[in-house]
Amino acid sequence: MNLKEFANRLALSQTTVSRALSGYPEVKQATRERILKAALEYGYRPNTSALGLATGRVGAIGIVLKGGGEFGPHTSEFMGGLGGRLQQEEIDILVSTVDSQESELSTYRRLAASKRVDAVILHSPFLDDPRIALLNSLGLPFIVHGRTNSDGNFGWLDIDNFGAVRQSTSHLLDLGHRRIALLNGYRGRIFAEHRQDGYQTALSERGVAIDPALCGHGEFTDEMGFRLMQGFLKLDERPTAVIAGSMMSALGAMRAIRIAGMKVGEDISLIAHDDVFPYISPDHLVPTLSTTRSSIRAAGARIGEMVLELLQGTPAENLREVWPVELVIRNSTAAVKPA
Amino acid sequence: MNLKEFANRLALSQTTVSRALSGYPEVKQATRERILKAALEYGYRPNTSALGLATGRVGAIGIVLKGGGEFGPHTSEFMGGLGGRLQQEEIDILVSTVDSQESELSTYRRLAASKRVDAVILHSPFLDDPRIALLNSLGLPFIVHGRTNSDGNFGWLDIDNFGAVRQSTSHLLDLGHRRIALLNGYRGRIFAEHRQDGYQTALSERGVAIDPALCGHGEFTDEMGFRLMQGFLKLDERPTAVIAGSMMSALGAMRAIRIAGMKVGEDISLIAHDDVFPYISPDHLVPTLSTTRSSIRAAGARIGEMVLELLQGTPAENLREVWPVELVIRNSTAAVKPA
Repeated sequence: MNLKEFANRLALSQTTVSRALSGYPEVKQATRERILKAALEYGYRPNTSALGLATGRVGAIGIVLKGGGEFGPHTSEFMGGLGGRLQQEEIDILVSTVDSQESELSTYRRLAASKRVDAVILHSPFLDDPRIALLNSLGLPFIVHGRTNSDGNFGWLDIDNFGAVRQSTSHLLDLGHRRIALLNGYRGRIFAEHRQDGYQTALSERGVAIDPALCGHGEFTDEMGFRLMQGFLKLDERPTAVIAGSMMSALGAMRAIRIAGMKVGEDISLIAHDDVFPYISPDHLVPTLSTTRSSIRAAGARIGEMVLELLQGTPAENLREVWPVELVIRNSTAAVKPA
Repeated sequence: MNLKEFANRLALSQTTVSRALSGYPEVKQATRERILKAALEYGYRPNTSALGLATGRVGAIGIVLKGGGEFGPHTSEFMGGLGGRLQQEEIDILVSTVDSQESELSTYRRLAASKRVDAVILHSPFLDDPRIALLNSLGLPFIVHGRTNSDGNFGWLDIDNFGAVRQSTSHLLDLGHRRIALLNGYRGRIFAEHRQDGYQTALSERGVAIDPALCGHGEFTDEMGFRLMQGFLKLDERPTAVIAGSMMSALGAMRAIRIAGMKVGEDISLIAHDDVFPYISPDHLVPTLSTTRSSIRAAGARIGEMVLELLQGTPAENLREVWPVELVIRNSTAAVKPA
């Protein structure tokens, strides 16, 4: 039933019906209620824009987050970018919270079965990710934030984590550093594997042996940076330079260095990956912090765009992007001090 | 295929099918999975409004965020708590992004008209908030995170911002401080007004005059804390103590103090409001930071609970809570140094 037929059946103008259904206050409450009731009764679906009516779309994109750690500063930035793009089409983000991988998988089933979203965004992929096969079998369109080795024809956007850490490691090698520590994410996550590869590649290119004692893994918190850095400083042969995976872990590392009576950018060089949080900037730290920079908010906006393109029929294989990461040299990286 | 045909094919009642598809816990897991599997196999796709017809609920709670600043660290923590509570009922969070107050208001109209959410959470209220009247007129149930002076019968949860800053100010006064600066949010926001009142009340109680030059306002970023603190330090009569509105602004203030060659907890006392971000803790700063503490994640969880209670028929006037805020004294606050 289209708007005209529905309005005729109610003996109301199309304008009144459509105003009532989009919530304009000019329509009397009683009329609005009559229209809403009739819409449900006749199966007339007012639940999205005219576009949604025409295409069978519900006007929401899903994202599933683990309740513990996944509601963090990266997520809010990413969602800010995503929401900013989707709002232009009056599309909402449906956030489902889960507490395990099992409940994540059953949530995708629920979202697909109840036709609650038009597509989902899959994030933090693993090397071999069971979610890919599930989403494909459910026929639920999706874009991956990150990359995976899993089979399947799907679109994704990732930053060049390999290139980022290869660049930062090479920059430190250029400055004469040979004992370079890496604060990385957990093994198994693709981004952490790519960063590890970039680090090892840069070291190998210069013939520098990899020392596992200089590689730490964890969630990117201030405390993680602090504790791992304190551990590095206790080594017999301490690092002269450190690569931090995020601004948060960099803050902790800076503090550990300061407490040890050393100066960042003099005694120890520090470079961090900067996701461009608006509330904490490498330009304002002391010393200003050298970084590899890529805005996670911009990635969110672009992924919103890619989801829209996917829903408009762009083939998934045309929706794959690796974003280069910019090296920004500031004052926290300097030539190694002679022993 | 409609609900009746689908239920017949499964030899189940329509009620069981529709309860299973809307995630009610009364349905056995095995039955639910059988129904979900069959729904996919037969292409039966109940849309959310069909589910709404059966159960009267769509299973989503709305939250509207401004695209610029409202996707920040406070929001992700709050949503982590909210989502953690709602997931137990398989209820999702629908996030709508807007770019102005006007589009925020029209979004509530759209959400109500399309019956896309069962309730919304209104946050960051103003003293006199036009959203309250609109939500009431739309008949859209809501809980406010914060408080407002607006008329209307609604539930809310707020922390005791007045008591928090009254406590922190009194603590500094007890230590002999008389020049106490306040890094506050923007005027007009209720939480910032309450904090201002707490500050002024504590000073008045001791007969200390209020100096407007010691009160700064802005978004709680690292940069805001840094810039305002630098300004305070340039005053002819600089403050001997500072109250920061968040961990982010405290980080900036600490840096400004350090650059000026002074020590937090010796030359200047600092106390911050701590929303308990898991990735940056006052216990790990140097010196450890005295705080007033209240977990915004816990508030999100409780508001999720309150929304569920509201939808189950608890009167809104029984859903009002002010949470006390705990003063935690660490090493960043100390007796004022003799001039």
